[in-house]
Amino acid sequence: MKFVCKKTDLLKGVNIVLKAVPSKTTMSILECILIDASAGQIKMTANDMELGIETVIEGDIREKGIIAIDAKIFSEIVRKLPDNDVTIETDANFQMLICCEKARFSIAGKSGEDFSYLPYIEKAEPVVVSQFSLREVIKQTIFSISDNESNKMMTGELFEISGSHLKVVSLDGHRVSIRNLELKGEYQPRKVIVPGKTLIEVSKILSGELDALVNLFFTKNHIVFEFDETTVVSRLIEGEYFRIEQMLSTDYETKVRVNKKELLNCIDRATLLIRESDKKPIIIQIEDGEMRLKLTSGVGSMNEEIVIEKEGKDILIGFNPKFMIDALRVIDDEMVTLYLVNPKAPCFIRDEKESYIYLILPVNFSSASV
Amino acid sequence: MKFVCKKTDLLKGVNIVLKAVPSKTTMSILECILIDASAGQIKMTANDMELGIETVIEGDIREKGIIAIDAKIFSEIVRKLPDNDVTIETDANFQMLICCEKARFSIAGKSGEDFSYLPYIEKAEPVVVSQFSLREVIKQTIFSISDNESNKMMTGELFEISGSHLKVVSLDGHRVSIRNLELKGEYQPRKVIVPGKTLIEVSKILSGELDALVNLFFTKNHIVFEFDETTVVSRLIEGEYFRIEQMLSTDYETKVRVNKKELLNCIDRATLLIRESDKKPIIIQIEDGEMRLKLTSGVGSMNEEIVIEKEGKDILIGFNPKFMIDALRVIDDEMVTLYLVNPKAPCFIRDEKESYIYLILPVNFSSASV
Repeated sequence: MKFVCKKTDLLKGVNIVLKAVPSKTTMSILECILIDASAGQIKMTANDMELGIETVIEGDIREKGIIAIDAKIFSEIVRKLPDNDVTIETDANFQMLICCEKARFSIAGKSGEDFSYLPYIEKAEPVVVSQFSLREVIKQTIFSISDNESNKMMTGELFEISGSHLKVVSLDGHRVSIRNLELKGEYQPRKVIVPGKTLIEVSKILSGELDALVNLFFTKNHIVFEFDETTVVSRLIEGEYFRIEQMLSTDYETKVRVNKKELLNCIDRATLLIRESDKKPIIIQIEDGEMRLKLTSGVGSMNEEIVIEKEGKDILIGFNPKFMIDALRVIDDEMVTLYLVNPKAPCFIRDEKESYIYLILPVNFSSASV
Repeated sequence: MKFVCKKTDLLKGVNIVLKAVPSKTTMSILECILIDASAGQIKMTANDMELGIETVIEGDIREKGIIAIDAKIFSEIVRKLPDNDVTIETDANFQMLICCEKARFSIAGKSGEDFSYLPYIEKAEPVVVSQFSLREVIKQTIFSISDNESNKMMTGELFEISGSHLKVVSLDGHRVSIRNLELKGEYQPRKVIVPGKTLIEVSKILSGELDALVNLFFTKNHIVFEFDETTVVSRLIEGEYFRIEQMLSTDYETKVRVNKKELLNCIDRATLLIRESDKKPIIIQIEDGEMRLKLTSGVGSMNEEIVIEKEGKDILIGFNPKFMIDALRVIDDEMVTLYLVNPKAPCFIRDEKESYIYLILPVNFSSASV
């Protein structure tokens, strides 16, 4: 194999497929990138068996061929090459020669015959979404997946399509994050659970451009993200997702409108007093025109008032401050509305048209600490 | 105690004295910052017994007093306060109240009676140097101190003043770094060994401004850095420093002029092939007009040529690539000159007027690896 390409193109391709290279594995072939220049294009592939990424880079193929090369070493060398044309050449012993200007690296590769290619997916009609929206929607929900593998379902996100509507849901047993997105086309109803890891990696590769698009394809066991010169194939999580409709309610006893940044900064400051492993709630007292926040820990105490608009009853309620911070951080609105029922019922943060709904369970606190 | 000051002033002061707060200690008083508003100014002090820092911040004292407060907690709270006036107030039980806008933090302090004040230093005539030059000279030499405490002397740097001349030297047994600086005044000869840790922390506080000055004072056991509103007092390392004059030689057999950036980038790229704990030399073959660099490791091999100007004999010599990189990184010149004698003698990198001299010992390599 021999081809010439620009360093920037090569590096971009390597960085994309690197997202599917597992950091720890016992199978050394999984630590490799497959470079395939056997069929008229330069295609790079990495696959950790759950998630596979394939991307095509521009370049001039001088001699057809295929090789598997250690992803870490190859990516580090490419990163440090001068910004110029790079020639990649392999010999019959799978030794790879990387030349750029006067620098010549020689490293050992593998034949690639043990490499796990991406599964073949029959691509029917795609669901189309902008790269920007998909990236945003992942960022705005991914924090409330669970990292506990004992409940596999919670480690993924629900992607539910009906008509021109995409709903993305994550939950970890203490909170639920929901984002609703309007699509440009009309689609058949579909419900799949996408692994959180896949979404995290995909969101890193997506460009933030509004007019760049992603085609989504679904099969029984896989989801495919197709964008730019890249294809990401991921297994889906099997099973039926939690019934979230029954958790949602529009009844409330207290409705609060508050400046998002003020509330976020106040809770963020309060968390300074929390040392690791210490679980201290932020206690919020809601009265007419004012919200009083208080946190007490072994380190000290803090309290602060924020001006609010309130409808309904006064309430005293406690939350895990991290959960509040996570939700508030990903809301772009200047003002947010909180809906509360009682100190044991979840708090809802949602906008009028329900483009977002964040449900957060309160925590108990001894009234002595108020 | 009660005073009001700007958050930015408070934070700046805290960040300065924080450099003398030890990260690990069994004495909890050392983890504290002393805030002293008993004598008409707001003075903060931290002291780890080797290194002490004192700084004065602007503010309005409402009630005199003094308190010792946990540095980590206090600094984290100050950092996250809104950017506005801050009121610090303490009560008879050394409880500290920090108020800023509507946020109120309450944390426990200490009386400060166990606090170790900075040693009193008789300040004679100062040696004056610009903050910029001092910061640069530290950065350009500090990498070749030793972190091995078994040879205390190597963990510090020699500061030698004679006439209008400041020489700064560090060495770790494999290399020597020397910087020579012209001062504006004429001073008495002095030779002291300043702990590396002190220099690292001082260089973080120094502003990079050319016309900001530092006054240096010396006593038998201490060095004092006085600049802006800050005083840094450090113990000196006792003993007589290594005789470096006898290591230096201006004889050479080979003289090479090479583009610094090209050489640095090439060696930097080569180190990609070195895995931790692996000690592989960069082997440099110097011939007329060309330098060939080569590195071979378990990962692979690289070689590259660089155009040079050469005088004298050809030579084949090996170096620890890190030592070459460290020295080249802190040289600002576009072209550097290397002076070599033979493959077992040190290489010198120095400029015409010897404002810098970097001596690097070569390493042995088997000729089989060439």
